[in-house]
Amino acid sequence: MTDAISHRYTLYDLAERLGAEVVGDGSRQVAGLATLSDAGPDEISFLANKAYLKHLAGTRAAAVLLHPSYAGECPVACLTLDNPYLGYAELSRLFDPLANRPAQGIHDSAVIEAGVSLGADVQVGPQAVIEAGAVIGDRTVIGPGSVVGADSRIGADSRLHANVTVCHAVVIGERAILHSGCVIGGDGFGFAHDGSRWHKIAQLGGVVLGDDVEVGSCSSIDRGALGDTLIGNDVKIDSQVQIAHNVQIGDHSALAGCVGIAGSTKVGKHCMLGGGVGLSGHLTICDGVQVTGMSLVTNSINEPGIYSSGTGAMSNAQWRKNAVRFKQLDDIAKRLVRLEKHQGGR
Amino acid sequence: MTDAISHRYTLYDLAERLGAEVVGDGSRQVAGLATLSDAGPDEISFLANKAYLKHLAGTRAAAVLLHPSYAGECPVACLTLDNPYLGYAELSRLFDPLANRPAQGIHDSAVIEAGVSLGADVQVGPQAVIEAGAVIGDRTVIGPGSVVGADSRIGADSRLHANVTVCHAVVIGERAILHSGCVIGGDGFGFAHDGSRWHKIAQLGGVVLGDDVEVGSCSSIDRGALGDTLIGNDVKIDSQVQIAHNVQIGDHSALAGCVGIAGSTKVGKHCMLGGGVGLSGHLTICDGVQVTGMSLVTNSINEPGIYSSGTGAMSNAQWRKNAVRFKQLDDIAKRLVRLEKHQGGR
Amino acid sequence: MTDAISHRYTLYDLAERLGAEVVGDGSRQVAGLATLSDAGPDEISFLANKAYLKHLAGTRAAAVLLHPSYAGECPVACLTLDNPYLGYAELSRLFDPLANRPAQGIHDSAVIEAGVSLGADVQVGPQAVIEAGAVIGDRTVIGPGSVVGADSRIGADSRLHANVTVCHAVVIGERAILHSGCVIGGDGFGFAHDGSRWHKIAQLGGVVLGDDVEVGSCSSIDRGALGDTLIGNDVKIDSQVQIAHNVQIGDHSALAGCVGIAGSTKVGKHCMLGGGVGLSGHLTICDGVQVTGMSLVTNSINEPGIYSSGTGAMSNAQWRKNAVRFKQLDDIAKRLVRLEKHQGGR
Repeated sequence: MTDAISHRYTLYDLAERLGAEVVGDGSRQVAGLATLSDAGPDEISFLANKAYLKHLAGTRAAAVLLHPSYAGECPVACLTLDNPYLGYAELSRLFDPLANRPAQGIHDSAVIEAGVSLGADVQVGPQAVIEAGAVIGDRTVIGPGSVVGADSRIGADSRLHANVTVCHAVVIGERAILHSGCVIGGDGFGFAHDGSRWHKIAQLGGVVLGDDVEVGSCSSIDRGALGDTLIGNDVKIDSQVQIAHNVQIGDHSALAGCVGIAGSTKVGKHCMLGGGVGLSGHLTICDGVQVTGMSLVTNSINEPGIYSSGTGAMSNAQWRKNAVRFKQLDDIAKRLVRLEKHQGGR
Repeated sequence: MTDAISHRYTLYDLAERLGAEVVGDGSRQVAGLATLSDAGPDEISFLANKAYLKHLAGTRAAAVLLHPSYAGECPVACLTLDNPYLGYAELSRLFDPLANRPAQGIHDSAVIEAGVSLGADVQVGPQAVIEAGAVIGDRTVIGPGSVVGADSRIGADSRLHANVTVCHAVVIGERAILHSGCVIGGDGFGFAHDGSRWHKIAQLGGVVLGDDVEVGSCSSIDRGALGDTLIGNDVKIDSQVQIAHNVQIGDHSALAGCVGIAGSTKVGKHCMLGGGVGLSGHLTICDGVQVTGMSLVTNSINEPGIYSSGTGAMSNAQWRKNAVRFKQLDDIAKRLVRLEKHQGGR
Repeated sequence: MTDAISHRYTLYDLAERLGAEVVGDGSRQVAGLATLSDAGPDEISFLANKAYLKHLAGTRAAAVLLHPSYAGECPVACLTLDNPYLGYAELSRLFDPLANRPAQGIHDSAVIEAGVSLGADVQVGPQAVIEAGAVIGDRTVIGPGSVVGADSRIGADSRLHANVTVCHAVVIGERAILHSGCVIGGDGFGFAHDGSRWHKIAQLGGVVLGDDVEVGSCSSIDRGALGDTLIGNDVKIDSQVQIAHNVQIGDHSALAGCVGIAGSTKVGKHCMLGGGVGLSGHLTICDGVQVTGMSLVTNSINEPGIYSSGTGAMSNAQWRKNAVRFKQLDDIAKRLVRLEKHQGGR
């Protein structure tokens, strides 16, 4: 980033921040992070997955972060740590140009309505809008073109990227990251039918996001009908996800891209939903459930574990033959029982 | 909402608006709406689903809207109505802070190009853009950051929330509600292949939305290739829905979140598509069809009714065993026939 | 479009541009393009699909573009071409009002930060933002409300429609078309788990789009963790698509609406993914693969061809019976083997 401050760290600095041990010349400086095969002599790399061990011997990195058991195989200096993947996460944040960008203040073109409360060192980008009654916590960054609706509250140290929409009366915790195009607090999908047409049910609830929540690009979290849609602490939501009104997601759960959750379903803590998973409405999913990609869950789940549905891809020719048999499956099962009875009867 | 006008209604007022009967003190005032378990003494609640009957006896609400048959069990005043769910819908709109917000006028920062026609009492939020030739009906609200493209027409009493995009030459009826991040009139996906590469087909058609249409957050309705994409009256579209070029949706149909409809498919009136449903292109779905969540429809449907595909979720261990058998299904069916023949032959 | 320049072409003009032959009066002028049944006497139509042949005899078009073999059946003048669908694509672009709109220049309300490089004849719409260090190629159009992040580069002759977000340090080739609401370069979904909570992995890579790439409304392409997400030349991406970090898509591939591709998967050249298809992470899909709508691919594919998964829709009553049998499928297969053994043993 043109205006980002370039940071250089000695290996000693990094070891101290990560709680790692230095093997080799700790005064060596690095200015970036890259993979074992891409890293240059000014960069640090890491080994967190045995599949990449083959790239260790040939790395041109200044140093490698790895588990102590691989230190002997490392051709350059190293930082050793029991959980090098966690160490990589921390390194990545140190070298993030966004984090190192100088503060931008409040842009002249931003519209900040009367009665807004801005914390210390809040940044508001060009063309952003903060409506009346909103409260923005210290050091929070509102990106260009983003809109914060009336009476919404966003905690400290949060970042709304460009073109984010937070609707009215939404509550967002600290250290939130909301990616471009996401919408927090659009109306839930609620209508009463009179036998011939639909009558809108105004969505009077809100959305409450805990601390340390991340929401991906173009995802939507709808506001509650009555009462709030509730997203716990440390919940991570990928791109293109849809969360309907009055859903509850427990702390530390993670939802991959294109997940859809229908109204009033409660997902426990430490759950992981694979890409494209669908949950029907009014279900309860207990803590510790994983659902694999593109599965549909239509019943509550009361036991932690891994759940799946669907059929894996095969050649279309093979699939056509099998898919047509799926429509005969009940018949097949009944005929099998008849054969078994007949055999047993002899 | 900070600047919303707070409304108080007597039970008599509400009964008159809803066509309900008052049982108890009709002069009692209420200022809000909440569930039976959450409502306080200043609020009205409702009972529209027998599952919540257990909360009736303990409610602290000032009054409850319910079916006459439950009036005897209600510990507080009540409004009785044959269809209390419909009554709840009407109450919800009375207490909607958005509906009660004072008019905002046209914000100084909005850009309204030459040749735009604005009806009476139109509101245009900060940073919005209305391009040349657009026509905006009376009392319509254009939210902050929203863009209305050249020559588009939006009917009276509509609301575009924040960061909505209506592309050029789109027609939208009266009382439309478009939620944040939705896009009406982006290009359909049309290309001609010359054997080695793609050639874009400019999308020369438009999109026409009838009256009383609602479109959820981050949904997209693409413009027609030639001729228009047509959305009927009273069609309700949830969040994250994709409607391709030249699709037609009949009046009063409802599409839940994450539905995708491929090009030129016609959906009838009073249809309901569950979350994540996919319809292939060039199909005709007759009136009165319901499709359950995440089903794929690849053939036209000529009979009203409920349709489904897929397999429900089970434990991953169980699923792995069954899914592998799915690939053998045609073989299983053939072997079963052989056994039957053999048995029949003896 | 109110301010679009209206173009009229003689059939001779069009024939020369398309490399077609004129049959009939080549001096006849046309001012628009429509289907055989909709075209009026001022318009040209086309026949590219035998299914529409029935509309040829009754067309009111001034002329019809078609294959030479149908010229004898055409009641009006015609342009003949071996690939009339390709000719239709070219005609559509000639009559596209967007392409014929006069240049708009740079709107006063747009914010262009210091250190931005704008090519010749760049257009920037109202309320758009171009951050420091961005480079915009000649004749490129940045739509209203769109944001181009710091240090991003967009090639010549590209168009960002309204409310597009290009994040920081993204590279986009020439002749790109980015539709409203799409987000290029949001963070990939990367976290390290410490046994109790998530730690963000800053996404330090970028996104590189080749030349002639189109991205539909509300689609998202995430930036790489380390290294870039790579989209080849002439790749066409429909609406509501999600492409995760470090995915690679080969040249000339096309992705229909609602496709989701998980992290680090490589898709070959000339692939076609149907609507709603999901690809798991870390797969390799070879050149020339087609996947039908809503299929889930969890293994790499090494042979060109058509692939599918799932089960087609049927009546819900029929489906319930069959879907429950799916859960017994492994048991059914084993029982069948037992019967076969028993029969073989006699």
